[in-house]
Amino acid sequence: MRLANFVHSEKLKKREFEARLPALRAELLEVQNSLRKADFPVIVLFAGVDGAGKSEMVNSLNEWMDPRWLINRAYARSSDSDAEVERPVFRRYWHDLPPRGQIGLFLSAWYSQVLLGSVAQTVSESEFPRHVERIRRFERTLATDGALILKFWMHLDKRRQKKQLERLEANPLTAWRVTHTDWAHWAMYNRFVVAGDQIIDATDTPLAPWRVIDGADQRYRSIAIGQHILDAIKKRLDGATPPPVSTDYSPSPVNWLSGVDLKQALDKKEYRQRREQAQGDLNRLCRQAKQQKVSSVLVFEGWDAAGKGGAIRRILRALDPRTYRVIPIAAPTEEEHAQHYLWRFWRHLPSAGNITFFDRSWYGRVLVERIEGFARPDEWKRAYNEINEFEQELAESGIMICKFWLHIDPEEQMRRFEERKTTPHKAWKLTEEDWRNREKWDVYESAVNDMIQYTNTSYAPWTIVPANDKYTARIHVLETACERLQKTLSDRPRN
Amino acid sequence: MRLANFVHSEKLKKREFEARLPALRAELLEVQNSLRKADFPVIVLFAGVDGAGKSEMVNSLNEWMDPRWLINRAYARSSDSDAEVERPVFRRYWHDLPPRGQIGLFLSAWYSQVLLGSVAQTVSESEFPRHVERIRRFERTLATDGALILKFWMHLDKRRQKKQLERLEANPLTAWRVTHTDWAHWAMYNRFVVAGDQIIDATDTPLAPWRVIDGADQRYRSIAIGQHILDAIKKRLDGATPPPVSTDYSPSPVNWLSGVDLKQALDKKEYRQRREQAQGDLNRLCRQAKQQKVSSVLVFEGWDAAGKGGAIRRILRALDPRTYRVIPIAAPTEEEHAQHYLWRFWRHLPSAGNITFFDRSWYGRVLVERIEGFARPDEWKRAYNEINEFEQELAESGIMICKFWLHIDPEEQMRRFEERKTTPHKAWKLTEEDWRNREKWDVYESAVNDMIQYTNTSYAPWTIVPANDKYTARIHVLETACERLQKTLSDRPRN
Repeated sequence: MRLANFVHSEKLKKREFEARLPALRAELLEVQNSLRKADFPVIVLFAGVDGAGKSEMVNSLNEWMDPRWLINRAYARSSDSDAEVERPVFRRYWHDLPPRGQIGLFLSAWYSQVLLGSVAQTVSESEFPRHVERIRRFERTLATDGALILKFWMHLDKRRQKKQLERLEANPLTAWRVTHTDWAHWAMYNRFVVAGDQIIDATDTPLAPWRVIDGADQRYRSIAIGQHILDAIKKRLDGATPPPVSTDYSPSPVNWLSGVDLKQALDKKEYRQRREQAQGDLNRLCRQAKQQKVSSVLVFEGWDAAGKGGAIRRILRALDPRTYRVIPIAAPTEEEHAQHYLWRFWRHLPSAGNITFFDRSWYGRVLVERIEGFARPDEWKRAYNEINEFEQELAESGIMICKFWLHIDPEEQMRRFEERKTTPHKAWKLTEEDWRNREKWDVYESAVNDMIQYTNTSYAPWTIVPANDKYTARIHVLETACERLQKTLSDRPRN
Repeated sequence: MRLANFVHSEKLKKREFEARLPALRAELLEVQNSLRKADFPVIVLFAGVDGAGKSEMVNSLNEWMDPRWLINRAYARSSDSDAEVERPVFRRYWHDLPPRGQIGLFLSAWYSQVLLGSVAQTVSESEFPRHVERIRRFERTLATDGALILKFWMHLDKRRQKKQLERLEANPLTAWRVTHTDWAHWAMYNRFVVAGDQIIDATDTPLAPWRVIDGADQRYRSIAIGQHILDAIKKRLDGATPPPVSTDYSPSPVNWLSGVDLKQALDKKEYRQRREQAQGDLNRLCRQAKQQKVSSVLVFEGWDAAGKGGAIRRILRALDPRTYRVIPIAAPTEEEHAQHYLWRFWRHLPSAGNITFFDRSWYGRVLVERIEGFARPDEWKRAYNEINEFEQELAESGIMICKFWLHIDPEEQMRRFEERKTTPHKAWKLTEEDWRNREKWDVYESAVNDMIQYTNTSYAPWTIVPANDKYTARIHVLETACERLQKTLSDRPRN
């Protein structure tokens, strides 16, 4: 249904409404209860014209269902705080996602910016596709992980919208709902509808379909939406699976690791000289980045005992502790486990001008989770693309991304394991798991090659670091971080 | 040791430093490993004059210990974002606390504001005690829950500070550490020392002692601090208990519930009239509050089936969903369980101008946790005071607090339980636990009386709501919320 040709036709008599509501409520509660044991979240989004009942619908659903398993997320029109603005736009929506087994109700949310921007013409035609693409990516990422996404556009024609706004204004209890902005939107009704049609067309996907709801009659719209939500959850609980995502994975044709020259070595004198130089450069660059509010994400992956921690510490030493956080990635917590696997990384993104070091990262999905079977084949196969999109999202919001694979050979690893065994303050670093992982060197090597093959992008390139010699590795990391940050700062449009 | 009479005397030879460091590191790692199984967190705070090595110390400890169980928290001098400022100042420190079994390193943190404010004379002499009291409360709350708090003041005399700043400036690698602010502080050295002495005097408590460290010699200060941390954790792990807190609890002499007239009832017509009036008033007040950035916290406690959810929904209906969040309190998650019991409520405080509804709350500590034995007697006995201090903290930062106890009698509860059993869309509300709780009516009643007796404060008063009649209860809640908000808004100093 095109909004531009919308005709009101739906109505529900009071008697019929009152007859249907109790059963609907009972069923919604029942389905909500079954959902709790399911392994997917439900995301319900409301958009549409002012006065068509979005807020009332959220309030009704709160009244009908068990609030303990229901999350409301409504966003102020202007951003709540700088912290939100300065991070990638989608961070707040990631943060607010319902865990598996629960329902999240979102008011406007990730459609507000592009919709209002299109109407106000602050989002130009040339920018429009980029906005839409980000929304599609976001919804696809969640839906392929199982999230059930339902989107409702609540609509009124121009005459009805006016009537509705006047009706709300006339009632002292609801007059506050009608603001100057609402009337300003009404005056731009035609633009609103054009933008709405464009957005619906561009984001109406099998994984996250839109449904246009006649918003003129309060009884009709609330029963209709309640029933849609109920039916969709029941269908999914009854085993309907989301449309499959093509995962055209094939093993990497390139062995990225085999070409690395592990013989390189630096003497202590050269190491010290270059380290001081690079640390000096890096802290100059980081101060510039802080001023210009350019954030950085540095990802450290590598073989056990390859020296990730040491390399990170050599960087930290040159930095102001107020600007960085080191996030060591271990098994997810209970809260993290109930969310999409990328959720816990969104949590730790740096605020404006700051730096986050990830000691291991989201690449666990295609390394340990793939190899140990914590992720199913379809999950880790589609993860390459999900990760690329995640990193693209960060890069597009101005975050510098640097990814390091610290590479050593099995002989060097054995030497270090032995050293750890005998050095008291290193013994804690060596676990049973390290020995088990070591036995799987070959499968890890293929996984690493796949990872580099499929996630080595222009906006988030991999740096393979020859790490048999610790001095070489640390200098390599430091100098690469400097180069990348230098490039990010100079590529930046000046304001 | 008074900072005003401070004399440098400590030094460590390079040879001795190198001899002691490996053992210290090994022991720190070992103790860190034992700590993981312990049920308390370690909070290490660094303050002191610029150039005395606070940042370097944090970096060194990061180098020496296992970063996976170590949290760094350094705060920019100016606040990171409005969202932080608008919430109670301590919210960010609560948010950043290490979980049990881990160590948190804090740089300046909750001492920055009062220290820099005293020096710059933006914190007046009359305000000073209030700042200090908030710090004492915060540290006492954590320490009595078991947190090991260690505070280091790293010091330099005026001549040494100058020398140190000059030395840092001369080295290209560290020159960035010295800013105009540092020299401005140096010029005010005497004031800095006076303020430091005052603050140390006022906050040097057995539960959170200060230790002044000679900061002139880098080798000495790092070994000294490392050793202090090591010894303190070992001592605590070996069974040293924190000084006991007096909990002079005695059962409430007043039966607050017995006086409630549960016979009151409203007819539907009066109910509707007053509801419309109150909802109208409330949304007008809430819009004023939003504009003036006055936040509200509404706490709902009451007997099972007393109608908490219904009362909350009658309020929501009058509000803009963008401004409120309803937080239903169930058992804590794993992450929440690893923290102080108040931590999870700090998480959900409203941002500026917004409203949080707590459907059950921190009062679980003195109700279900007391009765079911989830909290030890000394824990729930001291909770009354902790809760008062928590609420005082909120009230002092401008948050309006409204607390409701929805009161019904056992007969009414039975009637509602029976109704729930037979009404499909209400059946989910009735659990085995409700029946078990019902059998403990008398012990709950004493606990409720104690709660009201000991936490009914001027800044966060209890409202006991006669709830046998649902109409009466809802109107009582709505009208009380209006009154409280009206009062908060009119008591507010105009700017």
